[in-house]
Amino acid sequence: MTSTAPHPGPLSAEDLVLFNAWWRAANYLSVGQIYLLRNALLREPLTLEDTKKRLLGHWGTTPGLNFIWLHLNRILRAQESETERDILFVAGPGHGAPGLIASTWMEGTYTEYFPDITQDEEGMTRLFRQFSFPGGIPSHAAATTPGSIHEGGELGYSLSHAYGAAFDHPNLVVACVVGDGEAETGPLATSWHANKFLDPRTDGAVLPILHLNGYKIANPTILARIPKQELSDFLKGCGYEPIFVEGHEPDPMHQAMADAMDTAFARITAIQTAARSGKDTRRPRWPMIVLRSPKGWTGPKTVDGLRTEGFWRAHQVPVDHLEKPGHLAILEAWMKSYRPEELFDENGALKPEIAALTPPAAKRMSASPYANGGALLRPLRLPDFRTHAISLTAPGSTVAEATRVLGTWLRDVMAANLDSRNFRVFSPDENNSNRLNAVLDVTNRAWNAETEPYDDHLAQGGHVMEILSEHTCQGWLEGYLLTGRHGFLSCYEAFIHIIDSMVNQHAKWLKTSRETSWRRPIASLNYLLTSHVWRQDHNGFSHQDPGFLNHMANKKAETVRLYLPPDANTLLCVADHCLRSRDRINVIVAGKQPELQWLSMDEAITHCQQGIGMWEWACTDRGDEPDVVIASAGDVPTLEALAAISLLNTHLPDVKIRFVNVVDLMTLQTPEQHPHGLPDEMFDALFTPDKPVIFAFHGYPALVHQLLYKRRNAARFHVHGFREEGTTTTPFDMTVRNHLDRFHIAANVVRRVPRLAGQAAYVHQAVRDKLAEHERYVCEYGEDMPEIRNWVWPHTLQ
Amino acid sequence: MTSTAPHPGPLSAEDLVLFNAWWRAANYLSVGQIYLLRNALLREPLTLEDTKKRLLGHWGTTPGLNFIWLHLNRILRAQESETERDILFVAGPGHGAPGLIASTWMEGTYTEYFPDITQDEEGMTRLFRQFSFPGGIPSHAAATTPGSIHEGGELGYSLSHAYGAAFDHPNLVVACVVGDGEAETGPLATSWHANKFLDPRTDGAVLPILHLNGYKIANPTILARIPKQELSDFLKGCGYEPIFVEGHEPDPMHQAMADAMDTAFARITAIQTAARSGKDTRRPRWPMIVLRSPKGWTGPKTVDGLRTEGFWRAHQVPVDHLEKPGHLAILEAWMKSYRPEELFDENGALKPEIAALTPPAAKRMSASPYANGGALLRPLRLPDFRTHAISLTAPGSTVAEATRVLGTWLRDVMAANLDSRNFRVFSPDENNSNRLNAVLDVTNRAWNAETEPYDDHLAQGGHVMEILSEHTCQGWLEGYLLTGRHGFLSCYEAFIHIIDSMVNQHAKWLKTSRETSWRRPIASLNYLLTSHVWRQDHNGFSHQDPGFLNHMANKKAETVRLYLPPDANTLLCVADHCLRSRDRINVIVAGKQPELQWLSMDEAITHCQQGIGMWEWACTDRGDEPDVVIASAGDVPTLEALAAISLLNTHLPDVKIRFVNVVDLMTLQTPEQHPHGLPDEMFDALFTPDKPVIFAFHGYPALVHQLLYKRRNAARFHVHGFREEGTTTTPFDMTVRNHLDRFHIAANVVRRVPRLAGQAAYVHQAVRDKLAEHERYVCEYGEDMPEIRNWVWPHTLQ
Repeated sequence: MTSTAPHPGPLSAEDLVLFNAWWRAANYLSVGQIYLLRNALLREPLTLEDTKKRLLGHWGTTPGLNFIWLHLNRILRAQESETERDILFVAGPGHGAPGLIASTWMEGTYTEYFPDITQDEEGMTRLFRQFSFPGGIPSHAAATTPGSIHEGGELGYSLSHAYGAAFDHPNLVVACVVGDGEAETGPLATSWHANKFLDPRTDGAVLPILHLNGYKIANPTILARIPKQELSDFLKGCGYEPIFVEGHEPDPMHQAMADAMDTAFARITAIQTAARSGKDTRRPRWPMIVLRSPKGWTGPKTVDGLRTEGFWRAHQVPVDHLEKPGHLAILEAWMKSYRPEELFDENGALKPEIAALTPPAAKRMSASPYANGGALLRPLRLPDFRTHAISLTAPGSTVAEATRVLGTWLRDVMAANLDSRNFRVFSPDENNSNRLNAVLDVTNRAWNAETEPYDDHLAQGGHVMEILSEHTCQGWLEGYLLTGRHGFLSCYEAFIHIIDSMVNQHAKWLKTSRETSWRRPIASLNYLLTSHVWRQDHNGFSHQDPGFLNHMANKKAETVRLYLPPDANTLLCVADHCLRSRDRINVIVAGKQPELQWLSMDEAITHCQQGIGMWEWACTDRGDEPDVVIASAGDVPTLEALAAISLLNTHLPDVKIRFVNVVDLMTLQTPEQHPHGLPDEMFDALFTPDKPVIFAFHGYPALVHQLLYKRRNAARFHVHGFREEGTTTTPFDMTVRNHLDRFHIAANVVRRVPRLAGQAAYVHQAVRDKLAEHERYVCEYGEDMPEIRNWVWPHTLQ
Repeated sequence: MTSTAPHPGPLSAEDLVLFNAWWRAANYLSVGQIYLLRNALLREPLTLEDTKKRLLGHWGTTPGLNFIWLHLNRILRAQESETERDILFVAGPGHGAPGLIASTWMEGTYTEYFPDITQDEEGMTRLFRQFSFPGGIPSHAAATTPGSIHEGGELGYSLSHAYGAAFDHPNLVVACVVGDGEAETGPLATSWHANKFLDPRTDGAVLPILHLNGYKIANPTILARIPKQELSDFLKGCGYEPIFVEGHEPDPMHQAMADAMDTAFARITAIQTAARSGKDTRRPRWPMIVLRSPKGWTGPKTVDGLRTEGFWRAHQVPVDHLEKPGHLAILEAWMKSYRPEELFDENGALKPEIAALTPPAAKRMSASPYANGGALLRPLRLPDFRTHAISLTAPGSTVAEATRVLGTWLRDVMAANLDSRNFRVFSPDENNSNRLNAVLDVTNRAWNAETEPYDDHLAQGGHVMEILSEHTCQGWLEGYLLTGRHGFLSCYEAFIHIIDSMVNQHAKWLKTSRETSWRRPIASLNYLLTSHVWRQDHNGFSHQDPGFLNHMANKKAETVRLYLPPDANTLLCVADHCLRSRDRINVIVAGKQPELQWLSMDEAITHCQQGIGMWEWACTDRGDEPDVVIASAGDVPTLEALAAISLLNTHLPDVKIRFVNVVDLMTLQTPEQHPHGLPDEMFDALFTPDKPVIFAFHGYPALVHQLLYKRRNAARFHVHGFREEGTTTTPFDMTVRNHLDRFHIAANVVRRVPRLAGQAAYVHQAVRDKLAEHERYVCEYGEDMPEIRNWVWPHTLQ
């Protein structure tokens, strides 16, 4: 294209006219969504009755998003064949949803997804009305937004989502708009460095577009208030080649943006061609665009004499309180400045010459199949986990590291799906610490920064993703899942709280997604939390926190599953189930240390299918009514509970104990509360209707009480768990400090069983003596007493 | 100093000898802590019995920390008077605690704080033994570490802590070691930009020292594997002038480090002098140091033929399994390479010529008063909050925005303490959105980046801290509090989850601090959570999450206070209490929207002192035994609960209702669980022993059940709260979707009171009709029905 326009650049004068028209239309439709209930085309003079009573929405970032979308469309239209690249749009400033929705409607996609929002005046009126309106759609990009994989309400995750989407999608360019407000968040700040993990041969590309519009809600942004050289240094230091597009006059800005896009995409093509032909596979300096444009661009310059366009006052609703003198006129003049009569035909449809700027149907960003990942999802090939079973001659007859066993199965899963390139494992520098080393037998850790000859399984194209950022791991995984793939994230239990807020948003996405007819189920978000509270003796208090279970238990029951497999075989079984599930957040908590094993694989499968069950070999009630039920959830609590049974059986052989293990924590809730909830009659059959239950629990005791409160006689449950008494000490001492150890459990049994009242004082003293002996030994030798370290299950009870 | 050493630099040959000796001693003592139980000076051949059975600790970063400490001491020693600057050391790689503890012991401070750890062989043995040992001290820097304000277990917060410590401490330089692993975390990545908020006139300085030792647990670090130019661009882009110190040979490294320190401190002096004399107050390019040295520097080169020094294998315990052939010999050779006989005298004390490298007693970093902030703390001057009271003629007779009222008192608090420079308010770009605008009447938002003439209350030296990073706000505030000042953080309720993990660590710090005799209480960490779940109609589902209360309820009862003031006067009263408290984490949840006001100031004070109480004017039981208790906690739930009482009173006037409001949530627990827990007899006096209680709660209902489970008849509590049904809608519709509205509450009362069984069907139908009418209205008009919007408390009940 040669330019005949007064502003030189890739666009012709005719292009400029059309580009401006498209942009005006998108901006008009955006403002309409924020303000109007009727009179959508402003064919009548604007009245207060035409407007919404509660004005909600964010104008500030919207015209910039519309501008970027238009120029990405130009790239898509210029492609010669449909086999060329796809572009996925990620709007970091997701508050600008009116813009995304406007573009999507103009491209026809919105009507395809929501047939009642037609491409005419009536549809436009509905489009306006539903926005930020009861029963309508939210004010941020969300699961209801066609073309989006990104919930726009909480800032910071756009770029990690974008990289997650680009991995293993070689044909995809993810255009990721990063707001300069968002750029101040921690998660965003570190995700610039994700380019060191991208393989230009087999992954797609990410094109970051830093949108410097200068303001947040009420403050300027940092990156807009440092010298240009400093900003350029910063972005180069992050490994990018920034292309600046700066100004506010539409024509020169269109030319500059078209030029920048051409440069950026040519550079991406050159990088990928060089890498894929084997000519140059080194980490390239990827292009990015810095768009510096006014906040609320093309909006009211001032309102009530106060600076509005190009200032934070344009952030949300630039002119509100429309009943105030002059305000309605400002709105009308603003909307009319887009000249809607030139943009829409008499029916309210976009004029054909403007609509012609839409890319071919299959290439529309608004209809990108990558943005409805469930539609692309292929099931994993899952090798039989049973072949990895730990074989047992009897309960407690062998020792294994549960997560190491899991690692061997994950290795086989990885191997079976390497060709499909649709499975990755993620960890914040803890993959090996968490004993999942085996996966490195068949793939590498992804790495595209500098290497040394002595590096260990570090290579381009590896499918193990490790960066010391829980945020980035989580963001990558979410992006990977949302675009139709599978993944598995392992993390130290305590530090998963770092992404509490991110997982909240993913849970909300899944809920809304289920309520959105055209969204297809995606693979579940799977966590393995290990190096858990009971075996962080190495790192101490800072690394001891089992509260993520509490955090997740508040989320929608349709979404959340919490699993506490007590040994390696149950862990294998649970993990297989999780990788097959869809639209869930599965939290598995399991230890990595050598521990006694309890269930054969057949028993494990039955136990996991039920989620909760009696272990008859550990019961001493012989089918009679028990005196007490001892229950456990979690590997260390199960060990201590069984040791308590053994102790009681030795010293008080006529106490009748029933033992129940819980692997699926949500079985404790009622079926009305959670789909996995155990019906009351089955619950009472397991726990008896009224006997005391001593419950050894992995996490905070209050969680069990919270899950059980609807059960009959809930007050008979006495829970031992983490009391926030953490420190660097021996494994057994950790349980003692928190009263989760066998001695405290046994003493509590004696206290709760009425007919043992006579023994209570004696047992209490015995336990006190034992614990004093333990304390002396541990403080002297720094390890647990041999009788604890070498304790084994007695196999036969009296 | 002129150099006579073969390696040119500021250090003389004699200096070099001594510097190496000091460093060898610190390294020796570090290794000793990880490995030895006895034979501390290796005067006998090393045996397995001399070593700990469980080897725990992190060697990798330690020699680098020791090296940096030594060179900071040189700066302190070179100062001519004690009025010159102080240095506070923040160890981002807090895993290197053995180093901090070694230096602290060598300076005599450790013995001052822990008198049984004497400066002789016996003390050294105790020092070694206690490290990462049951009953001893943790393996990371913690509250037990003299000279530290930084818990070293969870990475990412060192630099925001450092800036928080430097604010308003003009005489202080905070030397902050940033690990290159930590540098990959989100919170650290954004905190580089905190330099845009530092005023060189009235704040101290931060000297970041990026320690590029190249490896994390099992991977290289990103910043160590990019070209030096790229790293330099990055740091310059963050606003720093990096000074590189690179290598591994001790002598040239000492010279380079001494030179770098001289340069950095001279630059800091020049910047501060220029700013404080008024010559140049623009944002300077602050110096920083990049130290590139081998991981596990001076440790074993290889173990079992595998690269160890300069590789991730040196991260924790470079040579373990000491029973393996050759391992004990490696350890012995390693420790002897430091030549302990040259470092310690026959009693095991550090030789005097080496000890002479310690700075003057008052300047020792290990004894810094800034690191025991409670010792510096002066109480705030707190103006009488009662003068800000909303005056009421009767309950519900007026409307106010609670947080805006609070803002006027915070303004007065700010004004009263401006001279002392010991109070700041923090917010992630939400100060005005949260209606605390009034504070800007007396101070500005801190800002040292570029300004524009039309900026709004943006200036150097402002005491309102706003950056769009919850992590940075939290880190700043923690650093500010830990060094003896006061603060207040306001945040949207949903997004406070972003710092879940940070507040965990602060809670652990406070717990450990209370258990450490020489730590003095610091000002509490105060949160105002507003723009809360019930009034995020503007932003919708992504902004709706009341789960932070659940998160905090798991922490130690000594630490946590949760307040839900129902109106402006109670909010004032609670806030005053929080600013006076020490060593707590106070969470206040209060709305910012115009709401009916209930209590006069006198009533509010009484109510807050009790934390929970009956509001007699809202009871219809007239001293009789009630049919039902309606309770509430939170402003919106209180409104709906009172409206439900009014409805019931109108339609079923003979139902006897008692109304109880909870402002201090922890009163619901028992006194054994929480110091604020209400004794059982008072609890039953309020709630009756057995009547049904319909509880309207701000957050997730399960939290109330979790707090109440130890109460008699806990099953009679029926809680209405957030059910995770969020969206963009009207305020009242949000309550309807979650069944917290007056109609659902009233219907539940009818269902739970046996003698109303006959009315249940009728009421149920009436409620259904009413809610259908509501839904129609809201979907038509986009705002709540006038009878809801304009509802007022009837003042007199029948």
